[in-house]
Amino acid sequence: MEKVYEGKAKIVYKTEDPDKYILYFKDTATAFDATKRAEVEGKGELNNNISSLIFQLLEERGIRTHFIRKLSSREMLVWRAKRFELEVVVRNISAGSLCKRLGIEEGKPLEKPLVEFFYKNDELHDPLVCYDHIILLGLLKEEQIHEIKHITFRVNEILREFFSQHGLILVDFKLEFGQLPDGSLAVVDEVSPDTCRLWDAKTGEKLDKDRFRFDLGDLLEGYRKVLEKLQG
Amino acid sequence: MEKVYEGKAKIVYKTEDPDKYILYFKDTATAFDATKRAEVEGKGELNNNISSLIFQLLEERGIRTHFIRKLSSREMLVWRAKRFELEVVVRNISAGSLCKRLGIEEGKPLEKPLVEFFYKNDELHDPLVCYDHIILLGLLKEEQIHEIKHITFRVNEILREFFSQHGLILVDFKLEFGQLPDGSLAVVDEVSPDTCRLWDAKTGEKLDKDRFRFDLGDLLEGYRKVLEKLQG
Ligand SMILES: Nc1ncnc2c1ncn2[C@@H]1O[C@H](COP(=O)(O)OP(=O)(O)O)[C@@H](O)[C@H]1O
Ligand SMILES: Nc1ncnc2c1ncn2[C@@H]1O[C@H](COP(=O)(O)OP(=O)(O)O)[C@@H](O)[C@H]1O
Ligand SMILES: [Mg+2]
Ligand SMILES: [Mg+2]
Repeated sequence: MEKVYEGKAKIVYKTEDPDKYILYFKDTATAFDATKRAEVEGKGELNNNISSLIFQLLEERGIRTHFIRKLSSREMLVWRAKRFELEVVVRNISAGSLCKRLGIEEGKPLEKPLVEFFYKNDELHDPLVCYDHIILLGLLKEEQIHEIKHITFRVNEILREFFSQHGLILVDFKLEFGQLPDGSLAVVDEVSPDTCRLWDAKTGEKLDKDRFRFDLGDLLEGYRKVLEKLQG
Repeated sequence: MEKVYEGKAKIVYKTEDPDKYILYFKDTATAFDATKRAEVEGKGELNNNISSLIFQLLEERGIRTHFIRKLSSREMLVWRAKRFELEVVVRNISAGSLCKRLGIEEGKPLEKPLVEFFYKNDELHDPLVCYDHIILLGLLKEEQIHEIKHITFRVNEILREFFSQHGLILVDFKLEFGQLPDGSLAVVDEVSPDTCRLWDAKTGEKLDKDRFRFDLGDLLEGYRKVLEKLQG
């Protein structure tokens, strides 16, 4: 298969159909601008499982995504997307870079969900961008900003409820967006414990990539618990 | 006189009138979070002169400021303000942190002026904040954000024209806002080559604090040229 792009966590391959790609989920874990890095056998499989499950849910709830179907343990068939150079972060509870950046304590429920945009640019370390920066950089048109914010809030509602029903607190998560071959705006990339902060609703245990970032315990064990809860 | 606060560039003193403060302009130059620092004899005087002149202009054009009058070479009498913990930056041409942060070339005229808000917090290194962060941190109310943006654009128009008439290009500048004793929203602090990027319209020579930041030449010479041009 012809490689389109190899990222930190996934490889994108072409298929016979020019409109479809295969996402191959690697076992590589990275954090802090990839200065911290490890191979975690089984992570790719878990993330593919969890992402597939979530994309399916989103599709059922009327959110357009790039997901077509899970192909194999590590492979997902998706629509080719013209990806926007943006990461969209939604926060329900303060954590991570928000706390560090603004001197806020971790674990404070936010009065309403906070959406943040980051310019997806490794060299610049994914800087925060406000509305006017997004326009200035030509990352999105005005209507697209509004549409993406709208979809993001809706995805947050759906996922918050879904995770909550399965004993998990959705603290925050990152989405990527792109334009599919048919022109529609869609959620692309992955939605997994690599890209969501998920806390056990009963014990408060962190089950996401923060385990790896801050050496809080076995990464895989956390991700496995997430999958088990979602399937249970 | 009783000191209220000593900052990097100025000292604030009480007066007999509880509603009025004295701003004393020091000769200290600082840059890069005050990691670079020097005493530049005469800077305080120049900044007091330039700031007084600009505040007077703004008042004449209907912009409320804290300025009452210049008291002495280094002292300005001002209204006491409840200062907002924000720095408001307006940019007409790309330069400085904008370029570094977003990988933009210096010297590109922006299609329209860009307003940025920074949380004035030395410990956090004045992080960029977007609309929702300002609300989250309780730095301003929604109406205040709009009012401040409105005033900022207006000040930019006035100053751009004024500097241009005197052979200077206003690249960008920083404003601080506060609430005066009568409750009105006003421009406070200073407007000087410490807080504005000013280029000579003919030669392109940088006449502002960038001379100090990047060792481009005698700081005072630049500030003196600015004052001479504005008075000429
Ligand atoms: N449907 C899609 N079409 C095109 N690119 C996609 C799609 N879904 C995800 N991608 C991109 O695939 C790349 C590989 O993913 P990842 O390893 O997470 O990369 P990165 O290290 O850039 O985050 C990313 O640039 C991601 O945005
Ligand atoms: N009218 C005013 N009332 C109260 N404080 C003011 C007023 N004008 C300016 N200030 C504040 O005076 C302080 C001293 O100025 P400066 O030396 O520039 O401080 P800093 O190092 O915090 O930038 C700053 O906090 C500034 O915001
Ligand atoms: Mg990625
Ligand atoms: Mg200051």
